[in-house]
Amino acid sequence: MSYSDFSRSQIEECVAKSYAAFSTYSQSTLATRNQLLHAIASELEKQRSALVAAAALETNLPEARLNNELNRTIFQLESYGDACERGYWLEASIDQDTSSQPVKPVIKKHMIPMGPVVVYGSSNFPFAYSTAGGDTASALAAGCTVIVKAHPAHPKTSSIAASCIEKAIATCQLQSGIFAHVYGASFQVGEWLVKHPLISAVAFTGSFTGGKQLFDWAAQRAIPVPVFAEMGSVNPVFLLSEKLEQEPTQIAAQLSASYTLGVGQFCTKPGLLIGMESEALNLFCDEMIKLTKQIQPSQLLHAGIEHLYRTKSEQLIAQKGVELIAQSQQQAGVGEGQALLTRVTASDWLENKLLHQENFGPYTQIIVCKNYAELLLVAQALEGQLTCTLMATVSEAKASQELIRLLEQRCGRLIFNGVPTGVEVCKSMHHGGPFPATTDSRFGAVGADAIKRFIRPLAYQNWPEELLPDYLQDNSLTSIPRYRNGVIE
Amino acid sequence: MSYSDFSRSQIEECVAKSYAAFSTYSQSTLATRNQLLHAIASELEKQRSALVAAAALETNLPEARLNNELNRTIFQLESYGDACERGYWLEASIDQDTSSQPVKPVIKKHMIPMGPVVVYGSSNFPFAYSTAGGDTASALAAGCTVIVKAHPAHPKTSSIAASCIEKAIATCQLQSGIFAHVYGASFQVGEWLVKHPLISAVAFTGSFTGGKQLFDWAAQRAIPVPVFAEMGSVNPVFLLSEKLEQEPTQIAAQLSASYTLGVGQFCTKPGLLIGMESEALNLFCDEMIKLTKQIQPSQLLHAGIEHLYRTKSEQLIAQKGVELIAQSQQQAGVGEGQALLTRVTASDWLENKLLHQENFGPYTQIIVCKNYAELLLVAQALEGQLTCTLMATVSEAKASQELIRLLEQRCGRLIFNGVPTGVEVCKSMHHGGPFPATTDSRFGAVGADAIKRFIRPLAYQNWPEELLPDYLQDNSLTSIPRYRNGVIE
Repeated sequence: MSYSDFSRSQIEECVAKSYAAFSTYSQSTLATRNQLLHAIASELEKQRSALVAAAALETNLPEARLNNELNRTIFQLESYGDACERGYWLEASIDQDTSSQPVKPVIKKHMIPMGPVVVYGSSNFPFAYSTAGGDTASALAAGCTVIVKAHPAHPKTSSIAASCIEKAIATCQLQSGIFAHVYGASFQVGEWLVKHPLISAVAFTGSFTGGKQLFDWAAQRAIPVPVFAEMGSVNPVFLLSEKLEQEPTQIAAQLSASYTLGVGQFCTKPGLLIGMESEALNLFCDEMIKLTKQIQPSQLLHAGIEHLYRTKSEQLIAQKGVELIAQSQQQAGVGEGQALLTRVTASDWLENKLLHQENFGPYTQIIVCKNYAELLLVAQALEGQLTCTLMATVSEAKASQELIRLLEQRCGRLIFNGVPTGVEVCKSMHHGGPFPATTDSRFGAVGADAIKRFIRPLAYQNWPEELLPDYLQDNSLTSIPRYRNGVIE
Repeated sequence: MSYSDFSRSQIEECVAKSYAAFSTYSQSTLATRNQLLHAIASELEKQRSALVAAAALETNLPEARLNNELNRTIFQLESYGDACERGYWLEASIDQDTSSQPVKPVIKKHMIPMGPVVVYGSSNFPFAYSTAGGDTASALAAGCTVIVKAHPAHPKTSSIAASCIEKAIATCQLQSGIFAHVYGASFQVGEWLVKHPLISAVAFTGSFTGGKQLFDWAAQRAIPVPVFAEMGSVNPVFLLSEKLEQEPTQIAAQLSASYTLGVGQFCTKPGLLIGMESEALNLFCDEMIKLTKQIQPSQLLHAGIEHLYRTKSEQLIAQKGVELIAQSQQQAGVGEGQALLTRVTASDWLENKLLHQENFGPYTQIIVCKNYAELLLVAQALEGQLTCTLMATVSEAKASQELIRLLEQRCGRLIFNGVPTGVEVCKSMHHGGPFPATTDSRFGAVGADAIKRFIRPLAYQNWPEELLPDYLQDNSLTSIPRYRNGVIE
């Protein structure tokens, strides 16, 4: 099978079909959307072995990990479907002031889907952030139609997932235009899609360069549209002294496992470990060195990433003050990523913006601060992050209000005595953060609140009851929570 | 007193002070913010006569209208303060799955303020959308500090409102940096503010040119920030046949009053009245002509608007097919705006994009469609709108699903048998809409949900209970509603 780039006219056809299907699908009941998401999940389960086999071949990821990721993908589809039907995200609201003279109009409000959404699949999550991943699930839950551009690194995996979605749409007797799957290894296809006047929103997971380009194109359109690009992060971990003294080896074990998990190819990989000069930090470093040497090099996702990882690592290690203090003892084979542990003083780090950026792969830096004041300077200099982690005793944390305030302003998720890898799928999760972690810090990509990216409010004034959705009718028996005159009913 | 433009160094000083104050104010309790908003309301009430007198002089608006607008402004401050303390907007959420093995982390989430916000006051609402208006009220409720650029057309009014805010801040014993008031008649001051790296968000009410410029500057920043620009609208009114037959004169009375209200200087002015060729439409036109002739010309807000209104009206009336069918019988004096009623066929309107745009002032157009199919073409050709209005019987509305779908996708508020002017301040209101009505259709500028423009989510993972706000602690007795494992507690 060939996965050649779509032509301009094929893209036009897809978008036109998606736009036409939107007028019907946007009116579908929440139950219908929930059924569709569950049906997709069930088709994915049926195709598990084909999906995992294709992904293993295309991404070099181990089968156990791929099976877990597929479980996660299925859970996303099902839980976003359930959240869709629960309807909190509609923010149904009724205001009626019967006491005022003259009588005020009755105002009601809910959320409506934006329109056709383009999803750009990611390379490092062939299931969970690709064709049938979280972006597709949340857009479909919102009532939007979806056009997925398959990631060129795993077209076969994507095509199997796309067939599952198409089959589920047929099973639910919905219009085929709800979902389209397009191929495009060139930038051109991506550009046609984001610039197409009938596209309403864009979701992307990948590199800063890719995400920022989509953002710029979208902002330059005659009618600008929102872009939800998750562009990765350095995920700093702050190691406070008392905690580090108590558990230097345990913390090293947690962090060395975290930064090398999945060959370091997670956007939540801890890429900066910030501590203060001390005996405990030395012990921590020694342990990190020991553990890093033991890490087996493994295949990276594809040759492009391997090349980037190798050249970027060489560039970083050549920077002033950067010391390579450990690497996997075993040499990396073709296409493999070697774990690399570096150390740099805070003053050198502060002077060199290159060291502030993500290096995608099993690479991390220990930043050695002279004292707490310098550690605060590091916190202050951080770019926007998906996560920040604090390793501290509770009493240390209590005494670190200034640090915590700085981190709150710079990230989307704060972690206490844990690791940033591992992103729970639940309502309270926020997988997002200030630029450059994402292009829109107000929305996240994991958990059912991801639905909120693809909706907008619509108010109705004195609108006839019989023309409103059931949950906005005065005497509805709906289970969807509603605001009545500003207060939850 | 002079209101000369701020220098670059004055702007730098304001922003630095605002940013410094943010670290404290962002941590203030909801009760403190509510107190501040009520204190501002109370200071405005004390200065009512000075405010109304200054505004009457600077805006040419009648005192009765200004008193009403001040009431509205006070209500906004108080009701947004109350909504702030009620805390729904925090979307407090806790996920804890104690059954799973291995034990999952506890994830909690709430909304945090974005940072210093710049507010650009509007010319047509010297109170409600200026210095102490809805944007300032919602940013302060969110926990953001605010820098207001006074509208150069009413600097004195703005300066009195600014003093009220400063006095309220002092009364509440808060830092003065929470609020700054700057003057700048030139574009330069506006540009410095929106491009300043310490500014987190921008709110604006005014022209398309002004709003779009701010949006572009904000998108081009090294770190892009959201711009909430409300840029006006044409607010089409669709006149269906049966309804028009029943009440041609009543509808004409409603619409002629609405399009000339406040000398047509509302962003919700109905600027397109769309009907189908019929005896009823002729009767409606005759009545509109009669009523338009009786409209007294009145002073527009300022000379710039008067000039724009006159030249734009001349330009529109000179377009192919546009007929001036009535105007105020009394000649307009210096600075006054004359009511102008025009008529054009749908086919001429469809061909000329210039006729699709807002003409700020007492000007409206009747669009005559041959039939319902042509009326649908008009609906389809509409740009994004703040409002769309349907004048119809209930049975006509029921039979007009296609039209309603088109309008839903093109506006922020749908009105049934009413007029778009008059924007209730309540939770269910949505004053916003697709571009070019606003630069961000996902947020509105009226009602307590306007707070949502200035916040973003932050998640906490295994964070110590004692370091969380009370309402995120497991055993809190808070009255703030919370989601627990995805369901409202």
